[in-house]
Amino acid sequence: MSLTITGATVRDIRFPTSRELDGSDAMNPDPDYSAVYVTLETDGELVGHGLTFTIGRGNDLCAKAVELLIPFVVGKSLDSIHRDMAGFWREITGDSQLRWVGPDKGIIHMATAAVVNAVWDLLAKQQQKPLWKLLVDMTPEELVGCIDFRYISDALSPEQATEILAKQQATRAQREAELLERGYPAYTTSAGWLGYSDEKLRQLCQASLEQGWSHFKVKVGQNVDDDVRRLRVIREEIGWERKLMLDANQVWDVDEAIEYIQQLAEFQPWWIEEPTSPDDILGHAAIARAIEPIGVATGEACQNRIIFKQLMQADAISFCQIDSCRMGGVNEVLAVILMAAKFGVPVCPHAGGVGLCEYVQHFAMFDYICVTGSFENRLVEYVDHLHEHFYHPVVMKDGRYMPPVSAGYSISMREESLDEFEYPTGPAWAN
Amino acid sequence: MSLTITGATVRDIRFPTSRELDGSDAMNPDPDYSAVYVTLETDGELVGHGLTFTIGRGNDLCAKAVELLIPFVVGKSLDSIHRDMAGFWREITGDSQLRWVGPDKGIIHMATAAVVNAVWDLLAKQQQKPLWKLLVDMTPEELVGCIDFRYISDALSPEQATEILAKQQATRAQREAELLERGYPAYTTSAGWLGYSDEKLRQLCQASLEQGWSHFKVKVGQNVDDDVRRLRVIREEIGWERKLMLDANQVWDVDEAIEYIQQLAEFQPWWIEEPTSPDDILGHAAIARAIEPIGVATGEACQNRIIFKQLMQADAISFCQIDSCRMGGVNEVLAVILMAAKFGVPVCPHAGGVGLCEYVQHFAMFDYICVTGSFENRLVEYVDHLHEHFYHPVVMKDGRYMPPVSAGYSISMREESLDEFEYPTGPAWAN
Repeated sequence: MSLTITGATVRDIRFPTSRELDGSDAMNPDPDYSAVYVTLETDGELVGHGLTFTIGRGNDLCAKAVELLIPFVVGKSLDSIHRDMAGFWREITGDSQLRWVGPDKGIIHMATAAVVNAVWDLLAKQQQKPLWKLLVDMTPEELVGCIDFRYISDALSPEQATEILAKQQATRAQREAELLERGYPAYTTSAGWLGYSDEKLRQLCQASLEQGWSHFKVKVGQNVDDDVRRLRVIREEIGWERKLMLDANQVWDVDEAIEYIQQLAEFQPWWIEEPTSPDDILGHAAIARAIEPIGVATGEACQNRIIFKQLMQADAISFCQIDSCRMGGVNEVLAVILMAAKFGVPVCPHAGGVGLCEYVQHFAMFDYICVTGSFENRLVEYVDHLHEHFYHPVVMKDGRYMPPVSAGYSISMREESLDEFEYPTGPAWAN
Repeated sequence: MSLTITGATVRDIRFPTSRELDGSDAMNPDPDYSAVYVTLETDGELVGHGLTFTIGRGNDLCAKAVELLIPFVVGKSLDSIHRDMAGFWREITGDSQLRWVGPDKGIIHMATAAVVNAVWDLLAKQQQKPLWKLLVDMTPEELVGCIDFRYISDALSPEQATEILAKQQATRAQREAELLERGYPAYTTSAGWLGYSDEKLRQLCQASLEQGWSHFKVKVGQNVDDDVRRLRVIREEIGWERKLMLDANQVWDVDEAIEYIQQLAEFQPWWIEEPTSPDDILGHAAIARAIEPIGVATGEACQNRIIFKQLMQADAISFCQIDSCRMGGVNEVLAVILMAAKFGVPVCPHAGGVGLCEYVQHFAMFDYICVTGSFENRLVEYVDHLHEHFYHPVVMKDGRYMPPVSAGYSISMREESLDEFEYPTGPAWAN
């Protein structure tokens, strides 16, 4: 029984997080975590959900972009999409007129993610599996058939991708069982926002330690003296055995990054995240060479597979931080995960925001079971914001993500939350 | 007497060019050349105009993005903007929430261009000079004060930029006089669109020769046998002394580009334009190394100064094709022109579309008078489309751009054209 997509709705949802300075960093002092929320209707009972994440203004632009992409899915049967996933993705990203205002980047690409992810949510629900399990039950050939290799074939061929997946195929079941029991490792960013006082920082570190966290990420970059003071507080609380990661959110130029990071080296950071513009591949490479053994991490603002390809070709990153909705949805993320495997770069997904933890956990499970079979240097970001708005929020156990069990991509939001936070008409925005 | 910007209007203007296959290429089979047209009103009589160029669908997204940027100019005095041009640009591109849906790329950045260019149009009109002359009458320090060096300081410092400009300052006047007499060299793309028949191609070549053109650009990349046949026709018509350039509009992967171009090498192309994704710096570098002495050109889809910086750092391009409204307007283009001078890469602006010839000619004049003082390997693209919609269309003489004489950025469109082609309500779109 094939389903056909019959219609779609798009909603502009915003949470007034700036009122509490949750999520504040050197580049983003007052984000209102927001989502463009897409519902795909079908001729059956199933609906598919997808979202793209923004931090407030501009969410309406993404919503409008989604509306222009809806004609590429309405009227299509899920079977026809499923039969040629790469072709579907090429089509929705390839409309020549819309491509001009990208290509494959920015608002139009983030909108693509919402729609593409909603299609995957539908596919997973139709098969009554969580997304990670849907992927895990696909053959290497089927998985490779989801990827549009345009512009990355010089770094990864379909044959190489198939080979990477085939190597892990026989042992998938044992890793799946292991994950179901123990979960996937994570780290927390909840303690280290820039807007918090030292006292709040200290309390949050203590609370995080009690919850069993062993990896802590802290925002830096606004003022080196403040950062030194804050990092001292954090090291006092978490000790020197646990890992500490820094995140500059693109605030530095290349030379400035090198100089600044060297002043924080005494705190033995494991990685520095987003030291400069996400577009600066050669800049990241220069920083990476200069600050070894501190690793460079980036990805949450990396626009597409082509930038990730080059970051790996240039040996610019030690950690690949895929995001579920900055790139064009599941298909493109699969491409990056496989490139990372080929280049030997561990994938540590970006999460937080709204729904990103719910989203990216599926890729971590997939990576472990089907692609690399390794936890080494691999962690998923965890932030304890806004999970209450989802019907199937992430389940954490001892600082680890437990594999989702509900069918779909875990991104369906509660109807009452949608109504409350719809912008600008919802009660949360009234006054 | 200072002017204050008091309001703004934004219009979605589209020309149904796809009906004639004007502008057709391997990636864009049916563009409808379009513009988001911005008018800035003041408390005086002057109004400023700016536009950003798209090829149809998605123009509405850019228009909506412009609306979100209007609050960054309305209420400001021209004097206050003029006093700190780099600060103004940092502010309009730096809103942290809007920055998330870029940063500095795609729809939000193209919208920025329309607004920033409209501000420059106002400044030039206020001083009763064409834009190029406004720039030429600025000191090196004033010009450098227009540039936000964020993310490019590792390649070009303010001091280096000042030095480049200072070197040409004493001799500006003689080059200005020369340009006013002889104009700036150009090449034509009007003959070589993919959608045209061989016969039409032949006729257009003959017509172009009669008009005095010496450099011809042709679209390639859809089918190598067709391209060989078409290039043979063109070489038969234009001979082997005149220069022939090829444009693939991003249609190839890296290895594919190298192989394909080698099959066209017998036609001795001067450059290959957009051989692959505009995001692929390392890919362009690999292609450049493989196809020497054919040069690589790109830029019309290069999202910002950071990508241009790396194309130059990686020695990936022999020709730098700035565009007036893909990047964030005049300020960012100045940065790229100065980086190109430092790296010794000639700037050959991208034009065509709607209003791009009118726009970029100003930069060519500025480059010659203030930056490089050279015509060597430097030409501005010329396409003979849609000029009739402007109050001050480009003036060509013997295949050269004559310096604009009217005050402003030459981008003010005729009121009757705006009414006729407004989308979707104008008569041109009625049926």
